[in-house]
Amino acid sequence: MSEFTNVTVVKKANVYFDGNVSSRTIRFADGSSKTLGFMLPGEYTFNTGAAEIMEIMAGDLDVLLPGSEQWQTVTGGESFDVPANAQFTVKIRTATDYCCSFLS
Amino acid sequence: MSEFTNVTVVKKANVYFDGNVSSRTIRFADGSSKTLGFMLPGEYTFNTGAAEIMEIMAGDLDVLLPGSEQWQTVTGGESFDVPANAQFTVKIRTATDYCCSFLS
Repeated sequence: MSEFTNVTVVKKANVYFDGNVSSRTIRFADGSSKTLGFMLPGEYTFNTGAAEIMEIMAGDLDVLLPGSEQWQTVTGGESFDVPANAQFTVKIRTATDYCCSFLS
Repeated sequence: MSEFTNVTVVKKANVYFDGNVSSRTIRFADGSSKTLGFMLPGEYTFNTGAAEIMEIMAGDLDVLLPGSEQWQTVTGGESFDVPANAQFTVKIRTATDYCCSFLS
């Protein structure tokens, strides 16, 4: 879907890496949440709490997933899953627009 | 208010200046809309359609408003108004989180 309806949006941005990564938190009526985020070129390591589905809406990046020794190329229209309590690293090649769904 | 409830959020980001400025569109039940945006350091000129209220939630910038020859300093917690069909320029000093309300 191209938009989320009947949701709550937290006004303040979540800001990481000097603002090179920023996101907005969206909460759904069923208690679930997602972030809509934007990453500028660079390399960033994230730690997960809950497991996540990272949907890349636009952009080009490589991702190093936990337990993998091989970088994977991901482009707009593709997704990847990250397990709970894990670490993953992305190398952003072109500005990347993403939607992160938290699985609880 | 710290969050917006019962709103529609457009999933894809609005992207300007190679992603150094990005925003998300929020639509309200009354037909009004706002964008929640993030600007990295740099100088950016924008053209307005509708008149806008720019609420700076965090960050430091200077703004040159239409009809003014003097730059104005704006910091987190402050706002400025921009008329319809006008142009304004911001010099972002530190990454800036904003909420732009469109007046129709």
